[in-house]
Amino acid sequence: MIYLDHAAATPVSPNTLRAMLPYFSDDFFNPSAPYLPAKRVREAYESAKNDIAHAIGAKGTDLVITAGATESINLAFTAARLSAPKASVRSEASPRSDAEITDAPRFGKILTLVTEHAAVLEAVKNYPHELVEVDKNGLINLDDFRKKLSDEVVLVSISLANNELGTIQPLAEISEILRFERQKRLRQGITTPLYLHSDASQALSLFDINVARLGVDLLTLNAAKCGGPKGVGALYLAHGITLHPLSFGGGQERGLRSGTENVPGVIGFATAVKEAKAHLSSSRKKYQEMTYVLRQELAHTSIVAQNDKKVKQNSQILKNPQESLITAPIFLGNPKHQLANFVPVCFPGLDAERLIYKLEQQEVYLSTGAACAANKGSKSHVLAAIGLSDAEIAGSLRISLGSTNDLDQIREAAEKIRQAVEQEYQRLAR
Amino acid sequence: MIYLDHAAATPVSPNTLRAMLPYFSDDFFNPSAPYLPAKRVREAYESAKNDIAHAIGAKGTDLVITAGATESINLAFTAARLSAPKASVRSEASPRSDAEITDAPRFGKILTLVTEHAAVLEAVKNYPHELVEVDKNGLINLDDFRKKLSDEVVLVSISLANNELGTIQPLAEISEILRFERQKRLRQGITTPLYLHSDASQALSLFDINVARLGVDLLTLNAAKCGGPKGVGALYLAHGITLHPLSFGGGQERGLRSGTENVPGVIGFATAVKEAKAHLSSSRKKYQEMTYVLRQELAHTSIVAQNDKKVKQNSQILKNPQESLITAPIFLGNPKHQLANFVPVCFPGLDAERLIYKLEQQEVYLSTGAACAANKGSKSHVLAAIGLSDAEIAGSLRISLGSTNDLDQIREAAEKIRQAVEQEYQRLAR
Repeated sequence: MIYLDHAAATPVSPNTLRAMLPYFSDDFFNPSAPYLPAKRVREAYESAKNDIAHAIGAKGTDLVITAGATESINLAFTAARLSAPKASVRSEASPRSDAEITDAPRFGKILTLVTEHAAVLEAVKNYPHELVEVDKNGLINLDDFRKKLSDEVVLVSISLANNELGTIQPLAEISEILRFERQKRLRQGITTPLYLHSDASQALSLFDINVARLGVDLLTLNAAKCGGPKGVGALYLAHGITLHPLSFGGGQERGLRSGTENVPGVIGFATAVKEAKAHLSSSRKKYQEMTYVLRQELAHTSIVAQNDKKVKQNSQILKNPQESLITAPIFLGNPKHQLANFVPVCFPGLDAERLIYKLEQQEVYLSTGAACAANKGSKSHVLAAIGLSDAEIAGSLRISLGSTNDLDQIREAAEKIRQAVEQEYQRLAR
Repeated sequence: MIYLDHAAATPVSPNTLRAMLPYFSDDFFNPSAPYLPAKRVREAYESAKNDIAHAIGAKGTDLVITAGATESINLAFTAARLSAPKASVRSEASPRSDAEITDAPRFGKILTLVTEHAAVLEAVKNYPHELVEVDKNGLINLDDFRKKLSDEVVLVSISLANNELGTIQPLAEISEILRFERQKRLRQGITTPLYLHSDASQALSLFDINVARLGVDLLTLNAAKCGGPKGVGALYLAHGITLHPLSFGGGQERGLRSGTENVPGVIGFATAVKEAKAHLSSSRKKYQEMTYVLRQELAHTSIVAQNDKKVKQNSQILKNPQESLITAPIFLGNPKHQLANFVPVCFPGLDAERLIYKLEQQEVYLSTGAACAANKGSKSHVLAAIGLSDAEIAGSLRISLGSTNDLDQIREAAEKIRQAVEQEYQRLAR
């Protein structure tokens, strides 16, 4: 089996699973219980939170543990829910004691990218928002960003690395723009706060994340994308930001996320993060070598069949098939601003889903894009945003390498992908 | 070690852990991914959901998987968020396209018990609500319930079994009252819906739950209280009820709970539920025998020292210490309406926290009440609601048996508790 979809899910590493195991059946105690074994579980839990936090240059108390990136993002966005002005609450002579319940909260605007993950794009719909454009590599259009950064904007949410293209956004630069905007607001007496949130789910195992260096106020992390277990995430939260819990209860996680703590999950998350952090530069080097080979091998895909007239007609991308060459494959994104393990690639005119099934039969597993979107058969909003035509989107694959891969696998996979692509082009030419 | 706090946390059973293991590192695929191994994971996940659902007489598609009981309860309560009347949305000539964002939703009233878990009592604060009284055994006061069941009530939330007393509420009877109320509303042309939600977290491993027989529209389940892993829960949802997601994203769980599915967690949940269900009557019998022995042994606690004048003064419960006897222990709740594994017991005048530490040194682990509340040092609202004085609350222990216990352990624990209690009474008498 050659698994090339690490952006969708990663296996729990052996060390991580080993670290988690005692907390299921032996040290299973409720960390809030008053006796010694439970207090030891509490210590292990808090220590794991510290480990996760240290990996991003923060303290354990800066983190809120969640059930995953989606929840972290939705929780982060509540920073844009500004409390209703006190005066108006009081002036309303309501006979009910629960006036604040039905009082419409005031919402600040959220800016985010048109290429963000569904978790961001769906969550943002609950707030006034605008989407910022990207360039053909998926990098933020800073002019468009500056234009849309109006006085009502409270939260800017930009993923550190895109989940389909692996495009790494210039967060430090964005943070600098926000610093100037805050200064401007201060001078003008505008009291609206301005925060930067980043979804770093895809980047954690390949990027040396430091919240201060990146200049983020809120950061979403996801265990399942870096060798940790599914169902665990975290939200880093700088001091002084008010969030509104998504659910209420026993008051765990400083009241921001109630419910008995998922102890084995957090222990696993911490172990995976530490492991990823320890191997950061060697992983990057390893993936750079592998993606170089993969790109080289795929670039040799025969373009003879592709330039057949029928293929061109089928590909629907050329107004005048007689005149131009299809130069497949098209590698998407710019490797200079891309996670080292990503090779998103387009074979114009082909049906990527057919490719996936063909390769599945040879035990090579990859996908067309985000698993949750791919599953619905809808076309990728990310690839549309970088200017790909429908036919190009239909022929695009997301290859994302990870811990399960080695160079031999990559050579074998490249060969199999190349064969499958050529067969498909030949089939179309017939 | 003798663990007597199964209401706070249960160990993951060996079978359950065994069932979960393959899904961490081998079958780790994203269930929404398009290739065969991922589709097999999807099948296993849906099959596990079916198993959980079947155990309560429902279908897998009736369940929404969550990160635990707290989230399930908070999600269930959104049934009381009635959509804003269409007309008012339209009449508001707002220049923004997102009018519904800032439109205050209309909330129906929620009725719940004064003795519910913090997850219910905190979540309900976001809605208009009233708390229904209980009797001295913690059973719902049906007169008070009928009185408070006004036309604005949309949701009634009554736990199947209380987490401190183990008191089993007469859900079928409550459901019958709601059925009459619905008929009355129908006759009177009142269109406000009326739903019954129950938190069955504590009851799942000891009670033959069937949603139709109980007459519930919504039911909260929790893996971690029945031998499953922490961080996994479910909400059963009858057809035709509109819920509002707490967070938004990839659209998993019918759009009600986005985020990559916690596959090992749900596999574990299903295994634990099936195991609990298979052993339901034998477990109940086993716990009945053990709690009988425990009650017998504890009842013999020497009351000589207790009737000392100083103890009585200390206990603060007697106006005239010379005249009355302290008849410790007081067993709380009525065993006829109590989960078979619960022995909540009060030693008036004692400091239960001192007892816990004394017993901890002998490796007997129990607690004063709900772990999340106990941790904060606040006095139990449940024991206050059933009419206990502060001194009685201060002297109360929650003993909850489970899979880790056998009869020898219970005899040993009873002996140790008795000794600790007598020593404490003697210390006070000195």
